[in-house]
Amino acid sequence: MAEPLFRRLALLGIGLIGSSVARIARERGDLAGEVVANARTPATLKRVAELGIADRIEADPAQAVQGADCVMLCAPVGAFAGLAEAIAPHLAPGAILTDVGSTKQSVIRDVGPLVPAGVHFVPAHPLAGTEYSGPDAGFTTLFDGRWCLLTPPPGTDAASVEKIAELWRRCGAMVQTMEPAHHDRVLAIVSHLPHLLAFTICGTADDLEGESRQEVLQFAATGFRDFTRIAASDPVMWRDVFLNNREALLEMLARFTEDAQAMARAVRWGDGAYIEDKILRGRHIRRSLIELKQA
Amino acid sequence: MAEPLFRRLALLGIGLIGSSVARIARERGDLAGEVVANARTPATLKRVAELGIADRIEADPAQAVQGADCVMLCAPVGAFAGLAEAIAPHLAPGAILTDVGSTKQSVIRDVGPLVPAGVHFVPAHPLAGTEYSGPDAGFTTLFDGRWCLLTPPPGTDAASVEKIAELWRRCGAMVQTMEPAHHDRVLAIVSHLPHLLAFTICGTADDLEGESRQEVLQFAATGFRDFTRIAASDPVMWRDVFLNNREALLEMLARFTEDAQAMARAVRWGDGAYIEDKILRGRHIRRSLIELKQA
Repeated sequence: MAEPLFRRLALLGIGLIGSSVARIARERGDLAGEVVANARTPATLKRVAELGIADRIEADPAQAVQGADCVMLCAPVGAFAGLAEAIAPHLAPGAILTDVGSTKQSVIRDVGPLVPAGVHFVPAHPLAGTEYSGPDAGFTTLFDGRWCLLTPPPGTDAASVEKIAELWRRCGAMVQTMEPAHHDRVLAIVSHLPHLLAFTICGTADDLEGESRQEVLQFAATGFRDFTRIAASDPVMWRDVFLNNREALLEMLARFTEDAQAMARAVRWGDGAYIEDKILRGRHIRRSLIELKQA
Repeated sequence: MAEPLFRRLALLGIGLIGSSVARIARERGDLAGEVVANARTPATLKRVAELGIADRIEADPAQAVQGADCVMLCAPVGAFAGLAEAIAPHLAPGAILTDVGSTKQSVIRDVGPLVPAGVHFVPAHPLAGTEYSGPDAGFTTLFDGRWCLLTPPPGTDAASVEKIAELWRRCGAMVQTMEPAHHDRVLAIVSHLPHLLAFTICGTADDLEGESRQEVLQFAATGFRDFTRIAASDPVMWRDVFLNNREALLEMLARFTEDAQAMARAVRWGDGAYIEDKILRGRHIRRSLIELKQA
């Protein structure tokens, strides 16, 4: 077995992503010599202890990061500023601070200024998830064949970036570096907007008058059913994603709304050729995804 | 084995739904003594012959319905008026004319007036489908545990309605009768609008500038990937659905757009409580679906 990448890995937040990393560390043995888990609620900490997926649990984030050579923020991105403030004075010299947040400009804005000299900050985002959350939801193959995007600010220590890249490769992911603003824009369309649409259509259906509302549930055909799967995702995590990728998300929603209105106009005026062309483009994109093995 | 429900079943159109019915008829033996398949294109007819899923293929719909005691329209709903016109003079006295179209008011509008006296018209809609189409796409378990909605106009012969109900039960479906306008409204939200949104977001992504467009494909996270699956559906079938459920679809899209704009406003002004509440409602609907075993 290879030497562990880190002596001590502190996971601040241990939901779907954090608990998957913990499970992989346990299974492989070459991620970290010791895994320390911190969570906001006593209930989560208790559950992590029961699951036995961390070497140590620690209720205080400042305590959790003591002596850790890698600290990974795995909480909802809205909690990062508070966490960074709490741990900054306690980070070990030379430690790497990283995260798994779905928005990267906000993380650099919130966490970057609080990182002490001598600590290396390597923002990261594994593109993996399910609609389940919490420490029970994680599993060791979550990242297999998925991308992990690193968005290190200019001047970040190259050796630290490489160590985080290696951590994610050992988790099964493919790693690529990306500019933070570009990351936020791409994620807005491939992930954040689809979630916003899914949450919204569930609300629209839930607002229907009595009988129809019941029948939406009874007759949920393919289509709505798939949307509800996405819409079952963690509310706090997604609230924070939306609020922390505001500009890119609103821009993509504006473009989408223009396109939906153009489709509505084609439906109203019976422009079958327009509708068919749009559907064909969807099919074409699906085929491209299948060729790229992303579907 | 039970007596076949029909002596001769004519399927006009033999894509995903029609070819699944044909396969079930072949497997069970108690749907029809003979299955006659008609399709618009010679290529489809040839493929049906190769697959061996019909007893007879017939290029002319008027020929296909000769002597059939059940005729099922399985083409895209936009083709129904033309088909009905072609077959009306050739329908056998006492025959049942039914369909599988996703819109029911339009079918009653287009086909109803052309049904000869002595022929029983029982509109139906099995709520089942995949993103695949054509005679190769069908399979015998497609309707297992799914709903089939019947929307017979007032005064329809009760025995004929019951025979079509029994046909769908033998196909594995659960059957319920519904008022046509109500059907179209429920389907607009559970199926037609989700498809419209999925087609639209694929187009929005496809319109992105060069580099981002490529990365949409490369990094299609959960969310976009699920939408593209829906968006891979048959273009002509869905074009016809949109054009033939215009009013209900535009109404549901208008409601959805209002809700999406309210969500956009909450994102812009940082109203986290509003966003979280909407996401929680999505989760609640998902749980209800799981309890109803529709997900």
